[in-house]
Amino acid sequence: MFDLKDYLRSRQKQINHKLESLFTPDNTQKRLFKAMHHSLMAGGKRIRPILCISAAEACGGNAKNVLDAACAIECIHTYSLIHDDLPSMDNDDLRRGIPTCHKAFDEATAILAGDALLTLAFDILSSVFLSANIAIEGLQVIQLISHAAGPSGMIEGQMQDIQAEQQQVSLKELEQLHQLKTGALIRASVNIGALLAKGNNSQKQLLDAYAQKIGLAFQVIDDVLNVKGDPKRMGKAVGTDQALQKNTYPGLMGLHDAETKAHELIESAIQSLKSFDYRAEPLRAIAEYIVRRDR
Amino acid sequence: MFDLKDYLRSRQKQINHKLESLFTPDNTQKRLFKAMHHSLMAGGKRIRPILCISAAEACGGNAKNVLDAACAIECIHTYSLIHDDLPSMDNDDLRRGIPTCHKAFDEATAILAGDALLTLAFDILSSVFLSANIAIEGLQVIQLISHAAGPSGMIEGQMQDIQAEQQQVSLKELEQLHQLKTGALIRASVNIGALLAKGNNSQKQLLDAYAQKIGLAFQVIDDVLNVKGDPKRMGKAVGTDQALQKNTYPGLMGLHDAETKAHELIESAIQSLKSFDYRAEPLRAIAEYIVRRDR
Repeated sequence: MFDLKDYLRSRQKQINHKLESLFTPDNTQKRLFKAMHHSLMAGGKRIRPILCISAAEACGGNAKNVLDAACAIECIHTYSLIHDDLPSMDNDDLRRGIPTCHKAFDEATAILAGDALLTLAFDILSSVFLSANIAIEGLQVIQLISHAAGPSGMIEGQMQDIQAEQQQVSLKELEQLHQLKTGALIRASVNIGALLAKGNNSQKQLLDAYAQKIGLAFQVIDDVLNVKGDPKRMGKAVGTDQALQKNTYPGLMGLHDAETKAHELIESAIQSLKSFDYRAEPLRAIAEYIVRRDR
Repeated sequence: MFDLKDYLRSRQKQINHKLESLFTPDNTQKRLFKAMHHSLMAGGKRIRPILCISAAEACGGNAKNVLDAACAIECIHTYSLIHDDLPSMDNDDLRRGIPTCHKAFDEATAILAGDALLTLAFDILSSVFLSANIAIEGLQVIQLISHAAGPSGMIEGQMQDIQAEQQQVSLKELEQLHQLKTGALIRASVNIGALLAKGNNSQKQLLDAYAQKIGLAFQVIDDVLNVKGDPKRMGKAVGTDQALQKNTYPGLMGLHDAETKAHELIESAIQSLKSFDYRAEPLRAIAEYIVRRDR
């Protein structure tokens, strides 16, 4: 019987251990690294790196071989949170129950810490793939990540999100926005796991379909939790989307239909995995966890 | 007789043409790409990409083969300017005579445009090296750039620059700061040119020495121009360093000694090139141009 809680805990431990190894007694003296550490080790769920590992496992690979790439993805995810929280963007004071980077340090330091985590991700990737001597796959991974995180992916999604604040958008536009803002990096995480574990083309396509569906479901549930979540469990305020008149799935579809949509997406994501064996169990359980989560 | 003006003009043209090709009728409709374009095509001198090309030429390579990498470097340089100009950093309204990105657009857009240019650089690099099928050199280039631009390079330099504003630093500390803030990327530019042109070890070492010296001289002259430059020629205000009580070479050494230092560095940089043939003429002329420039 597969125990997701155990699985997540063990993967989080591996990821956190690897991320901590980026910090040395020497560099943690520095304000820049302190700020990077503050946000990187702030109790994130590590969904993206875990998805990368689980996708590799589903293709018969193992965690160790994708751990560095998974951690580079987490660096990029963390940078995006630091910049999104800035006063000129979402202006959030708290993230996961602790002060956001610009609150714990200052705005300039937070901008630089974000820049540093983004750049560091590519330093990690290039260094690891050079020493592992898998250059072509290495470049493919860098291409996948930089494309997903760049101006045709995540950053454009954030830009559209800001622009959408001043206007009502359609459900289709909201989906497109989220496919860029959060979907692209989640999709890249899964695809990179499959790539590095040398999954075959059919496996890659099925995992990509899985990733697209859970990515969207993840965002729908995020919006749902902002309506009905417990602020104590979540470590941040709820009801903020409505107060800011943000475009959300519950806002556009109603709470009930949004929850139904999330469940349908997850069911369809799990369907994509039906030709995989027991090694895709973590991916199946993660999909279910996404709709069950309360933070 | 080598004509630097002609040379710079022709290289700038190549670089600008390649940079313009990043923008398509489709993406330039978007606010994010408009902001990226605003800063990327704002009349930069293209010193770093030209150094990359000239270093390749000095090793017998040609411009075409390093043009993409050179343009990726310019994207990274431009991102660093956009973020450095932000209100929470240097708070500059003008750059090269036109409004800075956050003035022409807004702060959130400027942060995202910077993030986008940084990420795009790695997308360009990975894509180009994959299609050229030079994977190992490709990863080496990505490693050089990400290390030079990251938290142990340029970003740490900017952090130290901000921290130094509140205190008096020594000449040695100021040099270390600049070696990180501007030196690291200039050095990477030259080293990448040498790497891609398959320079031998001796050539690589000599070019690295050259790059370190001109990088420092470039900064010394920047400070000198802030004291005695013509604001019209420079497209920005002068005297601002003194007004802000910034640590500068003229401030710490006096104007005359700072100018002498710059000339000595350039002489020594040109000495590093003495075993190179006529193909290093652009690098020699660029070194001289650095101390002669008036903007």
